Amino acid sequence: MKRSFIREILEHTTNQTISFAGGLPNESLFPYQALRESGYRALSEPASLQYTTSQGYQPLREKIAEQYAKQGFPTKSEEIMITSGSQQALDIITRFYHSHEITIEAPSYLGAMNVFSMNKLKQSSVKLEYDGIDIEGFAQNIQQSKLAYLIPDFQNPTGLTYSEEKRRLVADHIEDVNGVLIEDSPYSQLFFERSYPSISSMVPKHSFHLGSFSKVLAPALRIGWIRASEALLKPLIPYKEAMDLHTNSIAQRIIDDYLSDIENYQTHLETIRSSYGEKMEFFAKALDEFLPMFEYRKPKGGMFIYGSLDGISTSNLVQKCLQKNVVFVPGREFYLNGSIDNEIRFNFTNSTKNEIVKGLRLVNSTIHK
Amino acid sequence: MKRSFIREILEHTTNQTISFAGGLPNESLFPYQALRESGYRALSEPASLQYTTSQGYQPLREKIAEQYAKQGFPTKSEEIMITSGSQQALDIITRFYHSHEITIEAPSYLGAMNVFSMNKLKQSSVKLEYDGIDIEGFAQNIQQSKLAYLIPDFQNPTGLTYSEEKRRLVADHIEDVNGVLIEDSPYSQLFFERSYPSISSMVPKHSFHLGSFSKVLAPALRIGWIRASEALLKPLIPYKEAMDLHTNSIAQRIIDDYLSDIENYQTHLETIRSSYGEKMEFFAKALDEFLPMFEYRKPKGGMFIYGSLDGISTSNLVQKCLQKNVVFVPGREFYLNGSIDNEIRFNFTNSTKNEIVKGLRLVNSTIHK
Repeated sequence: MKRSFIREILEHTTNQTISFAGGLPNESLFPYQALRESGYRALSEPASLQYTTSQGYQPLREKIAEQYAKQGFPTKSEEIMITSGSQQALDIITRFYHSHEITIEAPSYLGAMNVFSMNKLKQSSVKLEYDGIDIEGFAQNIQQSKLAYLIPDFQNPTGLTYSEEKRRLVADHIEDVNGVLIEDSPYSQLFFERSYPSISSMVPKHSFHLGSFSKVLAPALRIGWIRASEALLKPLIPYKEAMDLHTNSIAQRIIDDYLSDIENYQTHLETIRSSYGEKMEFFAKALDEFLPMFEYRKPKGGMFIYGSLDGISTSNLVQKCLQKNVVFVPGREFYLNGSIDNEIRFNFTNSTKNEIVKGLRLVNSTIHK
Repeated sequence: MKRSFIREILEHTTNQTISFAGGLPNESLFPYQALRESGYRALSEPASLQYTTSQGYQPLREKIAEQYAKQGFPTKSEEIMITSGSQQALDIITRFYHSHEITIEAPSYLGAMNVFSMNKLKQSSVKLEYDGIDIEGFAQNIQQSKLAYLIPDFQNPTGLTYSEEKRRLVADHIEDVNGVLIEDSPYSQLFFERSYPSISSMVPKHSFHLGSFSKVLAPALRIGWIRASEALLKPLIPYKEAMDLHTNSIAQRIIDDYLSDIENYQTHLETIRSSYGEKMEFFAKALDEFLPMFEYRKPKGGMFIYGSLDGISTSNLVQKCLQKNVVFVPGREFYLNGSIDNEIRFNFTNSTKNEIVKGLRLVNSTIHK
């Protein structure tokens, strides 16, 4: 199996490297003091250190279910399974759909494509347009595959968001073919203006909705979840069980404790949203000034700015940039066939303003050298 | 996929149930105050909450490598990968050996057999004798499979321990066929009298040695590891990456902090060993007194007493016992073909002395009803 470009880069960067590569949240926004206090409370009894159930810690599942309900998507705790990040959720689900066909976006999340290959799924991709997947292509493709993997909110890598119309159309097509949607939503809470209804809420019997605390609280906790009907969720439990018995329950209890002060969590979310929104605007301005060749569209949330450099191989460019201690992910990594080679994904959340200016200048000078 | 009997039981038992089923450590022995303090220190900087490398937290890998070296098995941190419990280690390794043949013990660890089926391995089993696997059978079997899964220390479910002679013979056969051994050692530190040299240390280029903090510190942390040569370990990293990016790093840092006071850890280990040794003796005496039909051999470590009830179907018996709020695992669960049905695995670590007496009396009266 091939290693992920991003994970390899993470291991080869130094303190000196300006990284626009990984989808790293900004460390300065981690509510670490609060999580630390939660950790202390979570470990207040020996029972918190014992084995627990494979589906996940019940109080946390209830809190996650409540969040869905508040957003207008009625959900019971039985419809939630806690996973070791949403990466593991993808693995669990596609182990179940082993060797199945699957429709994905072009471009799509690299870590998903890797886990799909590992589970021998036959992936075929449909072009992403500015307002969501190309519906004609999707309709044709899903007819055959009956299974789709989409990231409708502030997509990785493109930052694009599906319009409400396209959400509804996707839902209709899923239902029409009696298919199943895997909707990956790690960024949905990181909106700059407003949130969007999930496609899953339109087809609750035909969907796995994937969430994660990695982008909004802290990645180290490795807590994600699957929201699905009991009929879809139950067959996954033996897989989770065989894979690691259950998710780390210290981390589950830390988050459960943290979420008991829900107002505090809401305030935290608002802080990240406005901070990331402001950082995105800064990054966009810096792009216009220091890398004017770069064509892109501003995202409405999430962590990435995506675009293209006309006539330039960005996979060659990144190798030269690495030597100058600046790094990004070349778009080619996000395509099944690697045919498109002039695109770039920039992460804007994890660098300081100085690093952004310095880094983009370095990229620009590397091009024109 | 089938669910594990033990995991299902765990979900169906109540506070009223006396459980001799799961391999649960005794909660009263968790060093939870110390782990709690470690947690507080581990969360002392925002960086502790960020993504980390797939192979695991470097300082913890160094400490684990040192422990091997101290036990006379030279090991570098590059030869350690941290996993979400040793259950995940089994999954990672056998994904790599997908569809391969594998030699296992009869009986063997249920969770291993489940993950091997999930990864489509063709399992064949060789009878376990009181001093380790039947060597003639093993020699014949490994010739064909080249891959073996063994639990030489205080085996699950039987509690049996391989003699040094059998360890050497197994190592020789593995080397002879240029094969690979997966040596599962979650209980090796739970000896009542002495420890044994691992088979892996005799064939370091032909082995994966699996360890875990679940039985000696706390299962909730879900921290295990693989020790293997770099040649064997490196190809596994992309799998780990695709499966969950990396293991929970809060738990890794908690254990790393805890292990910095290594003398304290040693004292803790001695406490568990003597407590479990004493509990095993008590359980054995209670068996002789309250379930005299049960034939068994005392284990030299670990968490289980295994034996047989002549002429009794223990898989029927357990269903009746469940109604009386006492539970154990019928031996049939641990055999590939389920042919042997008069054996029982009792966990002795997780019950009080009162529960042991009461529980065994209940089992006995259920038989004679």
